[in-house]
Amino acid sequence: MTIGSEALRQDVWLANQVIPKAGLAQLTWGNVSGVDRDGGYFLIKPSGVSYDDLTADMLVPVDLKTGKVLGGDLRPSVDTESHRAFYLAWPSIGGITHTHSTNAVAFAQANRDIPVLGTTHADTFNGPVPVTRGLTPEECATDYEFNTGQVIIELIGDDEAAAGMPGALVANHGPFTWGVSPKKSVEHAIIVEAVAEMAIKTLALNPDAFTPQHLQERHFKRKHGPGAYYGNPGATKS
Amino acid sequence: MTIGSEALRQDVWLANQVIPKAGLAQLTWGNVSGVDRDGGYFLIKPSGVSYDDLTADMLVPVDLKTGKVLGGDLRPSVDTESHRAFYLAWPSIGGITHTHSTNAVAFAQANRDIPVLGTTHADTFNGPVPVTRGLTPEECATDYEFNTGQVIIELIGDDEAAAGMPGALVANHGPFTWGVSPKKSVEHAIIVEAVAEMAIKTLALNPDAFTPQHLQERHFKRKHGPGAYYGNPGATKS
Amino acid sequence: MTIGSEALRQDVWLANQVIPKAGLAQLTWGNVSGVDRDGGYFLIKPSGVSYDDLTADMLVPVDLKTGKVLGGDLRPSVDTESHRAFYLAWPSIGGITHTHSTNAVAFAQANRDIPVLGTTHADTFNGPVPVTRGLTPEECATDYEFNTGQVIIELIGDDEAAAGMPGALVANHGPFTWGVSPKKSVEHAIIVEAVAEMAIKTLALNPDAFTPQHLQERHFKRKHGPGAYYGNPGATKS
Amino acid sequence: MTIGSEALRQDVWLANQVIPKAGLAQLTWGNVSGVDRDGGYFLIKPSGVSYDDLTADMLVPVDLKTGKVLGGDLRPSVDTESHRAFYLAWPSIGGITHTHSTNAVAFAQANRDIPVLGTTHADTFNGPVPVTRGLTPEECATDYEFNTGQVIIELIGDDEAAAGMPGALVANHGPFTWGVSPKKSVEHAIIVEAVAEMAIKTLALNPDAFTPQHLQERHFKRKHGPGAYYGNPGATKS
Repeated sequence: MTIGSEALRQDVWLANQVIPKAGLAQLTWGNVSGVDRDGGYFLIKPSGVSYDDLTADMLVPVDLKTGKVLGGDLRPSVDTESHRAFYLAWPSIGGITHTHSTNAVAFAQANRDIPVLGTTHADTFNGPVPVTRGLTPEECATDYEFNTGQVIIELIGDDEAAAGMPGALVANHGPFTWGVSPKKSVEHAIIVEAVAEMAIKTLALNPDAFTPQHLQERHFKRKHGPGAYYGNPGATKS
Repeated sequence: MTIGSEALRQDVWLANQVIPKAGLAQLTWGNVSGVDRDGGYFLIKPSGVSYDDLTADMLVPVDLKTGKVLGGDLRPSVDTESHRAFYLAWPSIGGITHTHSTNAVAFAQANRDIPVLGTTHADTFNGPVPVTRGLTPEECATDYEFNTGQVIIELIGDDEAAAGMPGALVANHGPFTWGVSPKKSVEHAIIVEAVAEMAIKTLALNPDAFTPQHLQERHFKRKHGPGAYYGNPGATKS
Repeated sequence: MTIGSEALRQDVWLANQVIPKAGLAQLTWGNVSGVDRDGGYFLIKPSGVSYDDLTADMLVPVDLKTGKVLGGDLRPSVDTESHRAFYLAWPSIGGITHTHSTNAVAFAQANRDIPVLGTTHADTFNGPVPVTRGLTPEECATDYEFNTGQVIIELIGDDEAAAGMPGALVANHGPFTWGVSPKKSVEHAIIVEAVAEMAIKTLALNPDAFTPQHLQERHFKRKHGPGAYYGNPGATKS
Repeated sequence: MTIGSEALRQDVWLANQVIPKAGLAQLTWGNVSGVDRDGGYFLIKPSGVSYDDLTADMLVPVDLKTGKVLGGDLRPSVDTESHRAFYLAWPSIGGITHTHSTNAVAFAQANRDIPVLGTTHADTFNGPVPVTRGLTPEECATDYEFNTGQVIIELIGDDEAAAGMPGALVANHGPFTWGVSPKKSVEHAIIVEAVAEMAIKTLALNPDAFTPQHLQERHFKRKHGPGAYYGNPGATKS
């Protein structure tokens, strides 16, 4: 019997399909998960399976508390323990995405935060998208993936902070993003990649570029908080 | 009952579909409007609706004089007040496009005009595509979108000037373009993005690149004014 | 009655369709022509018609000697007189392509030759792809397009030279390429764009990059001259 | 009668089709081969045939020991002797890919190794992807393609070394990659291109970027050797 609600399976499967469609990863270099808080588990892409081969019933259910696989004979993504760390740290999030998208990886590999250079960035992130410290040899040797999650949590802070900064870059690795749903987490992966590409080109034209604080705030608040006035939630199906 | 002529609805809908097709925006980061001068209203994309979900009858009619929504239950684009400012300032324009296309945004974020580096640019724009001054904290706090329109109008000038320079970059934000029709406005969005990409690459090869004035004029006049000899208007359907 | 052989019409039409397929131009910024030497005319894309709208019978027949349009009611490409200059100067060529492809335009706008940085370049071009001098105000004022052709011919030399260097960049404008057929000319347009992109990235990694002369010669001769051993002409349909 | 097992023909044909699909080459600038060790031959793409025209039965069987074509009337890829050199040097490999992918070519033309800047690279390559020395005029004059293979073998080392470093760049030319199968070799071509693009962008942001040794090792060992824990081999069809 397949574990995991059909609706969640469908959501996680669809969000995984966005990765190749949006050009966020080559081969199998990305994964999305979605959590069922009441059920105490999350569903995640199996390791090393191509997006073409992936079907919804191949998604792997993982126990939120123990990290144990709850069914099926597929191994979950190697990044599973990073995902689990985020779900435990931030109760409000419902989905997580990891990719190796080119421009976000470039910032991660350069060990630079993605600076706030314009409104595209400020619409979603209330500050620079930060890059983690490097993991120590010890953190690499044992529980590497769980520790990867921990250094991000260290960097971002609590649940509220994670809502205002739904992504981070792991040094010399790449981006993780999250959101209230699997779909939102992969949208944030698209946005991190887009603002990273814009930032690389902006810095080539002007290494001292920056955005005034009052413009950043205006844009972040158009989409967040009680005064938000962006969007038509009811009209949006896809 | 749907407000707005069917022909205009179709034109505005088609022009909105060009945005994702031409790669001018991720997610919902772009919008096109078209005006009915006799009817005293314009039709604009609803806020936050994906291009896949968008149907022609979802376009929102807005009163040209008051900015009030004239029908339906969808909120218009958050950029509506910028569009309205342009229609009021420039009687000859029929359509407006706003995008977050990568290379044009890079110039906007770098606070640099797109310089005239060749004939691709000079064919459409009679000078550098200018970037606005930044909005003040006060202009950001109240009537932000209408003020965004105003700083562009300040920069461009009157109706005739707007015909020769059918686009501008809002500092730290992105491009707005306009034209005699919705279709022409989105074509100008394609051109701004293309010349911005060419310019970034040109400046990497030669930071002192420029185009002689007599070549600029020759190309602008091939496509504009009484001596124009480009095109076969009658033969062009799409 | 349509002027021009059906086979040539088909070849020129197909080659024009390669322009958007290979991403060599936005909107209508490119054109291919093909010549019938015995008939004394060439067929060229009409001005300003989109590739989607273009049908084979819209191609415009132009008299090789006089430049007069021989039939139909469409205006030929504004670049027609440049094409005609090449056909008159170089008896061996059968097709010509002009595009505004991004990376080749970047070199043209930077007023830099595309240097020979590797075998991809040396396989087709026996030296740097050269950029013309700028046209004088007088050359811009009268017979601009024919003069554009002349400065390229000045730069390239005679028919034999044109066979070994099937392309050039017009300063602050873009690439023209030619070949024994319309198809070959557009393939050379693809190659100019590809080696220009490679060159921009190579120069970013190493501004002093170059290719040893003996490697250049080896590759050029694999594909050209009596010792050539590349390809299976009989097996190639498309 | 067609020489070569049907299964191998299909594998090699499919792997060749990945080249245009993954954007690794323009026109006919890439080829994949696959070897039948027991049969003593390999199948390789014919020279200069487009991927659209290529059918499985056009693949050319070549004798592993002598380099002679074993059937059909098509000439094999000009790079055939490079492929043969690799099969002779490294008994464990089953497939080889050569492309002119843009970013890998940029490193080859810049005469720079692709440095290890992050985990995307370290997952597949246990060190920088090296660029060969240039060939001497003598090596270019005679047996050029076999000598090209030899300088790579010189650089990489023995069979075990080739397993840990499944690719190299030929100076001023481009990448060769290999693997246990044709499919794996073309996957490595995708990866070389992806990490080269990431590296160019990373170096633009931080010319001193590097990856700590302990992180490199951790990632290489997630996918290689007895402790590997990446993937679900049984679940992967495509």
